[in-house]
Amino acid sequence: MIYLDSNATTQPAPEVVEAMLPYLRERWVNPSSSYRGAREVRKAIEGARGAVAEWIGAEVEEVVFTSCGTESVNAVHDSVRALWPERRRLIVGATEHAAVMESAERWVRNGGEKVVLPVGRDGVVELGVLREMLREPTALVSVMWANNETGVVAPMAEVVAMAHEAGALVHTDAVQAVGKVAVDVREVAVDFLSLSGHKVHAAKGVGALFVSRRARYLPLLVGGGQESGRRSGTENVAGIVGLGVAVALMRGQDGPRVTAMRDAFEAGVLKRVPEVVVNGLEARRLGTTSSLTFPGVDAAGMLILLDKAGVCCSAGSACHTGALHASHVLEAMGLDAGHAGSTLRFSFCRYNTMEEVERAVEGVVAGGEKMRMLMGVVVGG
Amino acid sequence: MIYLDSNATTQPAPEVVEAMLPYLRERWVNPSSSYRGAREVRKAIEGARGAVAEWIGAEVEEVVFTSCGTESVNAVHDSVRALWPERRRLIVGATEHAAVMESAERWVRNGGEKVVLPVGRDGVVELGVLREMLREPTALVSVMWANNETGVVAPMAEVVAMAHEAGALVHTDAVQAVGKVAVDVREVAVDFLSLSGHKVHAAKGVGALFVSRRARYLPLLVGGGQESGRRSGTENVAGIVGLGVAVALMRGQDGPRVTAMRDAFEAGVLKRVPEVVVNGLEARRLGTTSSLTFPGVDAAGMLILLDKAGVCCSAGSACHTGALHASHVLEAMGLDAGHAGSTLRFSFCRYNTMEEVERAVEGVVAGGEKMRMLMGVVVGG
Repeated sequence: MIYLDSNATTQPAPEVVEAMLPYLRERWVNPSSSYRGAREVRKAIEGARGAVAEWIGAEVEEVVFTSCGTESVNAVHDSVRALWPERRRLIVGATEHAAVMESAERWVRNGGEKVVLPVGRDGVVELGVLREMLREPTALVSVMWANNETGVVAPMAEVVAMAHEAGALVHTDAVQAVGKVAVDVREVAVDFLSLSGHKVHAAKGVGALFVSRRARYLPLLVGGGQESGRRSGTENVAGIVGLGVAVALMRGQDGPRVTAMRDAFEAGVLKRVPEVVVNGLEARRLGTTSSLTFPGVDAAGMLILLDKAGVCCSAGSACHTGALHASHVLEAMGLDAGHAGSTLRFSFCRYNTMEEVERAVEGVVAGGEKMRMLMGVVVGG
Repeated sequence: MIYLDSNATTQPAPEVVEAMLPYLRERWVNPSSSYRGAREVRKAIEGARGAVAEWIGAEVEEVVFTSCGTESVNAVHDSVRALWPERRRLIVGATEHAAVMESAERWVRNGGEKVVLPVGRDGVVELGVLREMLREPTALVSVMWANNETGVVAPMAEVVAMAHEAGALVHTDAVQAVGKVAVDVREVAVDFLSLSGHKVHAAKGVGALFVSRRARYLPLLVGGGQESGRRSGTENVAGIVGLGVAVALMRGQDGPRVTAMRDAFEAGVLKRVPEVVVNGLEARRLGTTSSLTFPGVDAAGMLILLDKAGVCCSAGSACHTGALHASHVLEAMGLDAGHAGSTLRFSFCRYNTMEEVERAVEGVVAGGEKMRMLMGVVVGG
């Protein structure tokens, strides 16, 4: 298997799994208990919290562990809506993940107003439009730091500056950004930031939420008062410890090597199939992500051929099982439905090798040729 | 360590951990992806869902995986409140877990009305009072199947019959009941049931929610539409698979052996310290749980002595780190604050041995004597 779908989920690092095991096998006591063993478990949680905090430039008390990125996002939206009922407006980027989009729908169902901030053809949110939108009193601006389908990076510093000037809070879905571009909440002073363990080589079932000390916050899950009252429910200790280790590993210098593989992949495909379009190429992009449109080729069919060839990638995001619908991200960037339906996402990580990249290029080129033959498309150029 | 605190959390079964590992090390792809490996992962999730469904007498499509019992509870309360705004009333038992109690507070903050159903001295909810309460239009009755501090089992069939007759829905926090008493939603037709993995020898970070086919349900977490749209967020695959295995193990015949240990423990302590009171003794109790009041003895001090002696137990529930406050459960049963502050909970599981029980009795008797000496209490009897 050549796994080029790390934006869907990442392989848990072996070091992460090893670090989790003692918390499943031996140190499984409830961290809220009073005996000695529980204190050690609490210390492990706090160690992970410190690692996450340092990673994103936060204070330890600003980091809340959750079960996933989706929970973090939902929690922020619901909290802001409940705490600022007099400010009804939520501004969301046009290319946000379903977690933000669906949560924004709930905002509307609960009497709020949602405004969608468009992106340009390059996938970047339109700052001029944002400035206009912020003339109306706004509770929250929710813009993803980096896009999951294209890797396009948002101008978060500018978004934060504009929003704060207008008295609005800022949430960012940084699930795809952390570990790939510098994310420091001291430099880019977002009020809330969501991240997910399984996108950074930790396990599924753990996430985190940054809540700025400046921001008020109402928890989504209430009960026993864990996480200083901000997220009740017995802690997923092994998952949290694993996230702490994953974070430490992400600080390594894998970035340039991964970017080199992504670039070699794109260059290899483009050389052989010059009509391929690289989405988001004009913008600042993550070095891990390649969104390629193969004009006239059905992406769903390509996925099947690539699966047979042992290449794992995806059409758009991996959210809905089997269901391939036109990507709202690509539509927002102005691609017509045909082009959106001809687009594949390849996403790379430190466990890929240049040899895999070369084989993947072969697989993609061969798959494209086969699809065109099947579809009776005359190859141009 | 003699671990007598399985109501706080259970040791993950070795079989559970072994079953989880392949989903951390090899089968870590996103279950929502389209390639072959993802189908295998989906199949594993569905296998676990089938195991949980069969265990509680549900249909597979009635089981939703969540991150913990608290999430399951919060989700039900919020859903019912949103879907039946014309019925403002929530009835909760007086001895519910904090997850239900705090969630009920949120119900009130959002314009609902909360009514607390009292329990008798035996800890059992007062059915006559419930009948009176249900004369007012009620949205939801939320009564725990078995209590976490005393093990007292609720007359759920009667609660369901009364509530349904009055047109109210029923939720039960069955976190402590499943695997210990027969829980079958065909026989006791609750509408919603919450359970937690880490209370049944699965890992922390996974729970489940039964949603009856008869009941409407609005998800708490929205986004990518996982769990048939009822719980978005990438699935905690390893945790879910582990829960499926844990469920299969819980079907074994450990119950009588565990009850024999609990009974031997109580008999051993009572023989040596006859003034000890067993809370909930007059009611039907879980065979795993012993709530003992040591008149005149400070429970917090006892906990420290027992910790030194290697015995893990708790004063009330394990929810709030370090904070020992008088148990609302014991207060609801009519114990005065003094008695509540002299109460310890011991909870047993299949990994305990009769030899541990004997040593624990020695530790408890010695601890009680030392505390009485320290506190200058004259031992009666």
